[in-house]
Amino acid sequence: MPLTPLGPGPEFDRIRRIAAVLGPRGAQLGDDCAVVEWPGGALVLSVDLALEDVHFRRSWLSPREIGWRAGAAALSDLAADGAEPVGMLTSVGLPPDFGDQALEGLARGLGEVAALVGAVVLGGDLSRAERLILDVVAVGRAERPVTRAGARPGDGIWVTGSLGGARAAWSALEAGRPPDRDALERFAHPVPRIVPGRVLAAAGARAMLDVSDGVAGDARHLAAASDVALDVDLGTLPLGPGVVAEAEKAGQAPAVFAAQGGEDYELLVALPEDFSRNDALALQRTTGVGLTRVGTVRAGSGVSFRYEGAVLDLSGYDHFA
Amino acid sequence: MPLTPLGPGPEFDRIRRIAAVLGPRGAQLGDDCAVVEWPGGALVLSVDLALEDVHFRRSWLSPREIGWRAGAAALSDLAADGAEPVGMLTSVGLPPDFGDQALEGLARGLGEVAALVGAVVLGGDLSRAERLILDVVAVGRAERPVTRAGARPGDGIWVTGSLGGARAAWSALEAGRPPDRDALERFAHPVPRIVPGRVLAAAGARAMLDVSDGVAGDARHLAAASDVALDVDLGTLPLGPGVVAEAEKAGQAPAVFAAQGGEDYELLVALPEDFSRNDALALQRTTGVGLTRVGTVRAGSGVSFRYEGAVLDLSGYDHFA
Repeated sequence: MPLTPLGPGPEFDRIRRIAAVLGPRGAQLGDDCAVVEWPGGALVLSVDLALEDVHFRRSWLSPREIGWRAGAAALSDLAADGAEPVGMLTSVGLPPDFGDQALEGLARGLGEVAALVGAVVLGGDLSRAERLILDVVAVGRAERPVTRAGARPGDGIWVTGSLGGARAAWSALEAGRPPDRDALERFAHPVPRIVPGRVLAAAGARAMLDVSDGVAGDARHLAAASDVALDVDLGTLPLGPGVVAEAEKAGQAPAVFAAQGGEDYELLVALPEDFSRNDALALQRTTGVGLTRVGTVRAGSGVSFRYEGAVLDLSGYDHFA
Repeated sequence: MPLTPLGPGPEFDRIRRIAAVLGPRGAQLGDDCAVVEWPGGALVLSVDLALEDVHFRRSWLSPREIGWRAGAAALSDLAADGAEPVGMLTSVGLPPDFGDQALEGLARGLGEVAALVGAVVLGGDLSRAERLILDVVAVGRAERPVTRAGARPGDGIWVTGSLGGARAAWSALEAGRPPDRDALERFAHPVPRIVPGRVLAAAGARAMLDVSDGVAGDARHLAAASDVALDVDLGTLPLGPGVVAEAEKAGQAPAVFAAQGGEDYELLVALPEDFSRNDALALQRTTGVGLTRVGTVRAGSGVSFRYEGAVLDLSGYDHFA
């Protein structure tokens, strides 16, 4: 069955069913991007659906932020493959009360995030809809796309930037509290890690994916795809803005709150054992993005999340859980 | 402004606004497909959104038919560029009552229409949603993509297959009457005209697009993009199954009903003057798809729809009209 093994959860059970039904009519499914061999290097594609009241609320974000965020989410998958973006296409479902100015804001946000990574908006489709729908396709190329499979025992597990900021903003907004300003920025304007992704790919990244459902879930995908076990030390997770305060309100340890927070769009990457903290500092100097070691790959299966001497059983965000 | 001129209508006004906002952050917009120069020939992409209660009703079609139809709609754009399909990606929004068996049917329909044209399902995205959403990206390649611009005075205007069948099915279903069986087949199982599209491209097609909003609207796009006028003789339109009976119920002439019927996914093509009825018969013999001459290109702008000695002012289907 052409499916990269995925971690547990009802969303991923559905993907397993789809792959089984498709059989040879499906390509290799289950990675961040679809990869198509093409003259002059691989074509790399990803698609990301953003729905009003599922992925965002219109009262929380401006149209421009909604456009940016949807574009960034799709581009983040290209970053996880170490790919160079070329363009984006976007299907938009427009509710009757989403006027021309709002549509222009949406287009502006999409165009801005495309321009940030050297891509252009290539096209799209428009329809009327009951609630706002954005589906963004990101198109790129890579000489050697990095998949989720390839981590080996002894590799270090690293994460870019910080985790939990988007969840901190969401938690505050949902409770009707003003969010931490930097946390809101993480939620409204995630920056796809295109340049760090390409630098990490060139540095010999063995396996990489983007943290869209939280490290707690995404680490399981990396372990399953690579057929290895991971030890993740939650105490080392780089905490995003607003996490300490929101974790306290949620009655969770900040590291657990951050590990279960989706939509940070950071990269989780397995790097060879000899990749050092000095190499990480060099990456930070050239890209402006930090890189923190959070775990180790070993033989076996599954993920052990270690925290203050105990092993926790954590799961990530699942649309269908 | 990088926008292929479009015909009139509120949907196309929105596309004009988007292109104006994007400016240089947008590529050439407004054609059936996005075209990206790539080593070894152009990469050709299109995206097509299918929404429950806008484009289909769940009570009318099986999940397998819904999947097939959404895939065929996206592939039809590749046909209009004379492109060779490679693969499809699909975002799916799943309502709570759309169970595992239904999801499998959807995947089966998508996989079947992909296999029909030599493509595979490359990937996708899943989310929960209130109503069923399918957004399909079709990916292909073409040595010389045929656009909507390029028709010249004197060219003949031709259409593949027949028109109005999908509308005939929709009209019956909406009125609670059992649809003509062949009309329902046109609505539920449109066949993307990939092979005819490639043959027409090789035969020197000057401009081509797929009939998704009805010839009445799509002919205007071809005229605007090519900066020419079209004379379309409605009396020559090849009528699809069920059209005569449903047109009578709608109080319309069958040719007008067919010209305003969307979602037939036939090709409207401008061919050089010397393309003959014998050439059309040869295409029918090799592809099994008929080709009918319905009009002529002349200098000027706009489209004259001629019917029984009069000139009618027709418009096509518009999502926002």
